[in-house]
Amino acid sequence: MQRYFAKTKEQDYFLLNEDDIYHIKTVMRMNEHDKIQVVYENNVYLCCLENVKTNLKIHIENQLKTYEDSMPKITLLIPLLKEQKMDLILQKATELGVNMIISIETERSIIKQKEENTAKKLERWRRICKEASEQSYRIDIPTVLPIHKPKELPFLEGLKLICSTTEKQKNIHFLLNSEKTCDRINVVVGPEGGFSQKEEQMWNQMGFQSVSLGNRIMRVETVPIYLLSIFNFYYME
Amino acid sequence: MQRYFAKTKEQDYFLLNEDDIYHIKTVMRMNEHDKIQVVYENNVYLCCLENVKTNLKIHIENQLKTYEDSMPKITLLIPLLKEQKMDLILQKATELGVNMIISIETERSIIKQKEENTAKKLERWRRICKEASEQSYRIDIPTVLPIHKPKELPFLEGLKLICSTTEKQKNIHFLLNSEKTCDRINVVVGPEGGFSQKEEQMWNQMGFQSVSLGNRIMRVETVPIYLLSIFNFYYME
Repeated sequence: MQRYFAKTKEQDYFLLNEDDIYHIKTVMRMNEHDKIQVVYENNVYLCCLENVKTNLKIHIENQLKTYEDSMPKITLLIPLLKEQKMDLILQKATELGVNMIISIETERSIIKQKEENTAKKLERWRRICKEASEQSYRIDIPTVLPIHKPKELPFLEGLKLICSTTEKQKNIHFLLNSEKTCDRINVVVGPEGGFSQKEEQMWNQMGFQSVSLGNRIMRVETVPIYLLSIFNFYYME
Repeated sequence: MQRYFAKTKEQDYFLLNEDDIYHIKTVMRMNEHDKIQVVYENNVYLCCLENVKTNLKIHIENQLKTYEDSMPKITLLIPLLKEQKMDLILQKATELGVNMIISIETERSIIKQKEENTAKKLERWRRICKEASEQSYRIDIPTVLPIHKPKELPFLEGLKLICSTTEKQKNIHFLLNSEKTCDRINVVVGPEGGFSQKEEQMWNQMGFQSVSLGNRIMRVETVPIYLLSIFNFYYME
């Protein structure tokens, strides 16, 4: 069953945005009395379509049960990457339960942010996360923040990690075992060329612990998917 | 440094295939005495280019140290998927250390194999795995087998798993904890519509244990990446 996110509720009806209405009527070609799921304020409702051919209304039938998420809240900090890689990370990280995604300035990022594109890019990123949230039946949509400089990030709380290619002692397995009870994890992923030594030290000074992901050499866009898979597995009940 | 796989060695020289020679000369535009790494029979050698402008020769300088892989051998059994999804799985599974990939017939596969395409498709899949092996500095290339019917697979040995959407008791965390010592894992991933009940039972009868991957709803192409990430993490030393 299709799932949509609603921002507004009026008595027994939800109001969806225009894209979603287009999706219901034109892409999915749904009919009168077809059912959909609607998420509203982190709750899920079974709804029935009325007046599909004229003025579509989404009637609330009843609330559905949802499951508790046992994973800590995950914030992913990633460099600017080429569109295709960025899209893959946004989609897959959303499927795997990421909570917040912040793009960060790094010395060796191949892609530079042009100011005039910022708003458009952010809109695109948020749309990908919304669609992936619907597809994967989430009850929330990850927060996507615009590009930040590292020094603009003191608001992050919880366990702070930076994926390092030079750290040899502490790997992700060791580190999670020593931090069992954390309820938030923030993890910084480097660009294609990795972090400079100076840059990694600067993150370390901000409280981000260097962590090795093991011996494999992964492409940048694989790393966030790998990390989120691990977090899902580690905190599975 | 670029890494290539060689099949033939003649005294102090490796012979590469035409694609690799084209890559060295035309794509990478390497020069006389530039260094590359060559993998030959699971060992890695530092090599020096000679006669780049005329008749390229790959001179062996010395053998390099490699690390032991602590993960069991993983065989991935996946349905036929659309090209883009298939390519993503092949590339990422290779990066994450998969050993063998076999495409399987399933009831609900959207894509049907056309016999005339089989050889061409297989060649494409193998090329993707070879390139991903070079990029991720592997010392071997995953084996890619053509499409198999389930009953043609009795040759698989070790722990056998099938990703189930109906299994509620045994999740992947529980199952790995109860099978600590296995040296081979074979895991079957279902198509978009999942396995039919009859089909899952048939796999169960062949010794594949149903396993839940947790509560998240993932796209098919995410599942193999998720699984391989978990195996890497679980067997990390």
